[in-house]
Amino acid sequence: MAVKNAMTADFLRSAYGGESMAHMRYLHWSEIAQKEGFPNIARLFKAIAYAEQVHAGNHFNVLDGDIGDHSVTAGGVFGGKKTAENLLGGIMGEEHEVEQMYPAYLEVAKMQGEKEAVRSFTFALEAEKIHAELYKKAKEAAEQGKDFEFKKVYICPVCGHTVLDELPDQCPVCGAKKDIYKEF
Amino acid sequence: MAVKNAMTADFLRSAYGGESMAHMRYLHWSEIAQKEGFPNIARLFKAIAYAEQVHAGNHFNVLDGDIGDHSVTAGGVFGGKKTAENLLGGIMGEEHEVEQMYPAYLEVAKMQGEKEAVRSFTFALEAEKIHAELYKKAKEAAEQGKDFEFKKVYICPVCGHTVLDELPDQCPVCGAKKDIYKEF
Ligand SMILES: [Fe+2]
Ligand SMILES: [Fe+2]
Ligand SMILES: [Fe+2]
Ligand SMILES: [Fe+2]
Ligand SMILES: [Fe+2]
Ligand SMILES: [Fe+2]
Repeated sequence: MAVKNAMTADFLRSAYGGESMAHMRYLHWSEIAQKEGFPNIARLFKAIAYAEQVHAGNHFNVLDGDIGDHSVTAGGVFGGKKTAENLLGGIMGEEHEVEQMYPAYLEVAKMQGEKEAVRSFTFALEAEKIHAELYKKAKEAAEQGKDFEFKKVYICPVCGHTVLDELPDQCPVCGAKKDIYKEF
Repeated sequence: MAVKNAMTADFLRSAYGGESMAHMRYLHWSEIAQKEGFPNIARLFKAIAYAEQVHAGNHFNVLDGDIGDHSVTAGGVFGGKKTAENLLGGIMGEEHEVEQMYPAYLEVAKMQGEKEAVRSFTFALEAEKIHAELYKKAKEAAEQGKDFEFKKVYICPVCGHTVLDELPDQCPVCGAKKDIYKEF
């Protein structure tokens, strides 16, 4: 295992569980937004679902090690039907990660000297801040019956950094080159 | 909520968590199989990842209801590097669902008269039986350094039924028409 400490390993598994469920519900809510006539919000959900997949993959890779079963406890948001409501669910989940979950996991990983976990948790935390803000703007639009206006949404495949329209020369979070960003 | 009973709701959330994590690790293991030179096994992992997405979506839909946070406890398989090992992880996860998890959830959902949950759990259970068998065959091949031989793998988008090469006229599990199956 690339991780020496049981608590950091537990938190990586919980974060993986939470990211996996977030990925899944954003794909689901993307389809609903599409049907409701919000193609940009649908695209935003799909792009952010991919960012959560990057986070889940990073946590999974840090855990490394032998094949084994684990019971995982993780936070999930459930329910919703209308896009404005689903965006509220998105904001709730992202804010929980930004304000509570990732700061707590990060603190313990730092205390335990688990550098790879610190990196993986930091990548996720930085992206979730942006996700919360984007969902807030999208919700304002959806509540007025409008789609969220943007041209493209880009995701860094290394860290999940999420940006609209204008790509930076390199990822501000992980330093990846702009040409590897995935476009939605 | 379409679900009246707290225990069935809990089990639906756990099943959703488990399916979401399975989806994620199969996508991850698909990439590893591709790099290892097993394109068919990579395709099998990707197809079954989609079947797990169908199951997760069904459980999520049965839960329905208002937006809310929940702590979810679910089983996950972690680790692996080589495809033969990852397939063992796949078999372990699928067999746990077939022998333990879904039979227990189904029994309670029946006892509580939760018809929609019974349907959603049954759909998943029937597909997981097939997944376990397919992973066993794929593992035998991979252990001999060979790819798993098949032409196409098809997934029913309603229930996740999984079949190789020869499509039935209608889905044996949910009755869907053959032309809606998704091909991988
Ligand atoms: Fe994330
Ligand atoms: Fe996020
Ligand atoms: Fe990045
Ligand atoms: Fe499944
Ligand atoms: Fe399965
Ligand atoms: Fe079916």
